[in-house]
Amino acid sequence: MQFQDFSSFKAVARLALLAREPHDLTTVDGLSAQRIREFKVSASGFDLLYGTQRITPEVLSALQDLADESGLINTFKAMKQGAVLNRIEGYACENRQVLHTASRDIFEEAPGSPDATTKAKIELTKLNAFLNDIGSGRVVNAKGQTFTTMVQVGIGGSDLGPRALYLALKAYSLPGRSARFIANVDPDDVAEVLLGLDISRTLFNIVSKTGTTLETLTNESLVRAALIKEGLDPARHLVAVTGEGSPMDDASRYRATFYMYDYIGGRYSATSMVGVVTLGFALGYAAIIEILRGAHEIDRSAEQRDIRKNIPLLMAMLGIWNHNFLGHATIAVLPYSQALARFPAHLQQCDMESNGKSVTRQGESVGWQTGPVVWGEPGTNGQHAFYQLLHQGTEIVPVEFIGFRQNQYGLDLEVEGTSSQQKLVANMLAQSLALALGKRDDNPARCFSGNRPNSVLITDQLSPRSMGALLAIFEHRITFQGFCWNINSFDQEGVQLGKVLATKLLQLLATASQDHPEKLDQECLEKILLQQAQMM
Amino acid sequence: MQFQDFSSFKAVARLALLAREPHDLTTVDGLSAQRIREFKVSASGFDLLYGTQRITPEVLSALQDLADESGLINTFKAMKQGAVLNRIEGYACENRQVLHTASRDIFEEAPGSPDATTKAKIELTKLNAFLNDIGSGRVVNAKGQTFTTMVQVGIGGSDLGPRALYLALKAYSLPGRSARFIANVDPDDVAEVLLGLDISRTLFNIVSKTGTTLETLTNESLVRAALIKEGLDPARHLVAVTGEGSPMDDASRYRATFYMYDYIGGRYSATSMVGVVTLGFALGYAAIIEILRGAHEIDRSAEQRDIRKNIPLLMAMLGIWNHNFLGHATIAVLPYSQALARFPAHLQQCDMESNGKSVTRQGESVGWQTGPVVWGEPGTNGQHAFYQLLHQGTEIVPVEFIGFRQNQYGLDLEVEGTSSQQKLVANMLAQSLALALGKRDDNPARCFSGNRPNSVLITDQLSPRSMGALLAIFEHRITFQGFCWNINSFDQEGVQLGKVLATKLLQLLATASQDHPEKLDQECLEKILLQQAQMM
Repeated sequence: MQFQDFSSFKAVARLALLAREPHDLTTVDGLSAQRIREFKVSASGFDLLYGTQRITPEVLSALQDLADESGLINTFKAMKQGAVLNRIEGYACENRQVLHTASRDIFEEAPGSPDATTKAKIELTKLNAFLNDIGSGRVVNAKGQTFTTMVQVGIGGSDLGPRALYLALKAYSLPGRSARFIANVDPDDVAEVLLGLDISRTLFNIVSKTGTTLETLTNESLVRAALIKEGLDPARHLVAVTGEGSPMDDASRYRATFYMYDYIGGRYSATSMVGVVTLGFALGYAAIIEILRGAHEIDRSAEQRDIRKNIPLLMAMLGIWNHNFLGHATIAVLPYSQALARFPAHLQQCDMESNGKSVTRQGESVGWQTGPVVWGEPGTNGQHAFYQLLHQGTEIVPVEFIGFRQNQYGLDLEVEGTSSQQKLVANMLAQSLALALGKRDDNPARCFSGNRPNSVLITDQLSPRSMGALLAIFEHRITFQGFCWNINSFDQEGVQLGKVLATKLLQLLATASQDHPEKLDQECLEKILLQQAQMM
Repeated sequence: MQFQDFSSFKAVARLALLAREPHDLTTVDGLSAQRIREFKVSASGFDLLYGTQRITPEVLSALQDLADESGLINTFKAMKQGAVLNRIEGYACENRQVLHTASRDIFEEAPGSPDATTKAKIELTKLNAFLNDIGSGRVVNAKGQTFTTMVQVGIGGSDLGPRALYLALKAYSLPGRSARFIANVDPDDVAEVLLGLDISRTLFNIVSKTGTTLETLTNESLVRAALIKEGLDPARHLVAVTGEGSPMDDASRYRATFYMYDYIGGRYSATSMVGVVTLGFALGYAAIIEILRGAHEIDRSAEQRDIRKNIPLLMAMLGIWNHNFLGHATIAVLPYSQALARFPAHLQQCDMESNGKSVTRQGESVGWQTGPVVWGEPGTNGQHAFYQLLHQGTEIVPVEFIGFRQNQYGLDLEVEGTSSQQKLVANMLAQSLALALGKRDDNPARCFSGNRPNSVLITDQLSPRSMGALLAIFEHRITFQGFCWNINSFDQEGVQLGKVLATKLLQLLATASQDHPEKLDQECLEKILLQQAQMM
């Protein structure tokens, strides 16, 4: 496992040449039926259609070379086996393993990192017992009533992934069970969630790896105060997901505690206890095992060297082609499924926090672009909104479409000869073609330049298993890109400076006199800037 | 009112020179207390702090010249007075006035466009009567019960703005009233919303200007079927917002009908009947008048020529500086308020659909960048997610922060000497400084390059009035930019091609035999591509 500068690879020089004249999708033969059939990968029930990318067989071959030269598959396998990949050589850093795949290796006789998988199994067993106790009425409120709602209190990685997955799979909820989420330190976030709840039948799941996250501890205080106000015992209503030995690892304050480990980063933690406790409460234990199974299938298929067989690897290399060689600054993830409404926000975190870096693994400044801006909203909604810019704007935005052949609830109706689900998928496919093909017109405002790269990822239905697979596809797409760019995708040093300055501002407020409270305003900023200037 | 190419302005040449060495915020005097105090505009209760932009007094002066040279204020005034600004010279186009401000001119003795304002008043009077009838129990269900929920069925402009405003102001809901929204043609969107409702006490508000929107009509069919299934009369439960004389303008099918006019584009329609019917149901008539009042105050203050007094004009010019001269492809809107969770999605539509254009008002290709990619999520959540890239990524993302000094619900708690609301605002101000100042460190992974441009828009509280103002600030920011770029911000030709191709795909499906139903897949795409090829 060796890391080398992105700019030093032979394939990079070749790709830069090929990018001078990228494939033109708008000519007569630019996008043929044949091309659609040929540029397709299938794995674990998913098809990736990528004929609508601006690539040729030569580009694909150079991307394969880049994947090989940069040793992506070897590094990926080493990651699964516990290599210390969360580090920068020669500098203080987290210096940790990267083992989110270990929580999915439970199906393997010989898992990549046996200790981590054993720990994952222990927590799953604890969780299964706890869920059984809730179901059977052994875990109840003070009046002996069952719990109907779990509210997850966490932020960032302890919020976005679990929330996105819950919304995606809400259709599969156990009868009478639901989940809610509180993240923001904004007190109105807590207020709004509590307003809609029967708090006496609610469990609060407080999630923080370090047990010190400002927002989460503050919101835990608000929740405890609300329980006490209703005459309820917080220790009966709170459970914790935290690191072993953290300040939150305290059985006197939580009804149950599940552990997370430092080798799973927050943004990769949806399949650890961070995600599966609340998902297990709402969907049942069997569903979370299916999520893990789907993710595990992709963990396995992502080990293949051939980019024409490996969906996340191919998506990673197509992303690098669009970003580093064709120069597109952003990427849109557009799911044609309302249930995936928050999945782009999760990926925005996972991708931008992983690959929004400027320093190599050797501590040098990068001389190439790293992670793009990731954003997106569900289709068809976006078609009536920002798609205008996708089709005719001066910024070119590569698109990753996600679609499903069947819906979840089974409530559908034929209107004018087709069902809503057919309309949904037909619209996605039509957008993919329209972006690629473009259209000439005598009216300049009705011209479409086309050549807007995109691909379509499609499977039968959004289920616990396919959701797990989808999550893993994007996790590995992101991770492969980080390896290729020679950056550490697993730290987040960029969040520190804001924390330091916020703490200073809060000290200013806390020490202000009651008679002259500080107004949070430019005067506050001025004082902080004067402090900073004095320190220089 | 004259439109000229962006590249032809003298100020553009001067700004291009100034952009070679933009102001450095990271030097000892780069960002002083004095600078924070000086670079501040106040209007209608809002402060805009923009000392953290990479500008000098010379840049500001050149931006003022650009605003003057491009005649932005004159064009803006002409727009309010009914000029036909939705057009491309010499080509088929919508050829319409642009009068979303007219629905807010109801407070003026001499409104800019008297006819449009009179029509707006007529609809408001109808709405007030209808809301009174709901409140007094004259408009009830078949059992004589009052209605508790209104579900708005619309998409794009008939969804995003009203939805964002409802979430923003939900804290002010009338007792026992709530609103929901259905937009996506995905049948699971309808299913999920209907599942959580007492449909017998629900009004459905069907919103489509043309009365022909595919998604909305399809979802209306699903809603009608659901009502009939429950033994309810759809004509008793449905109201319509549509154009006069549209296929939906049919009193036999809707309990009440409110009109929208072709001089208000969907994405600018939140303060027309498109928004205020559902908002009025949920929040009451007085609240919507306050929304209109807040918007109107900004409509007035946006007429000032001086960019140091005009918040939307200054924001527009700062955006042009960051996008066209400093070369940043995207802009993030980051509200520090959970209630504004969907406001960035509304702005994404309003901005990208308005300014994602490549053709001038004279039908020529633009030779400069038009609208950026707009995206965002609430803080502090984002700080634990994509802020890593904002601080340390290779893509520079200018930021528009939005904050409030007080919360909405009044549920708050001091933890470690400060309230949650103070923590929220302090974090926003800290992020603004951190992005601008950066930080040196011996550990390269802990260095922050700084110089990441941003501004802070802050007011006392998110209320109906300030929400109206906030909406108008961004509407005019977007419109001023479109005028300056010499594009038509009011059409949306870019949505047509996808519609045409989707219709072809749906025809393919509708005519497929029952024995061999088409699988929505690459084979469908192949067939369409073969059809296209035969047409060439």
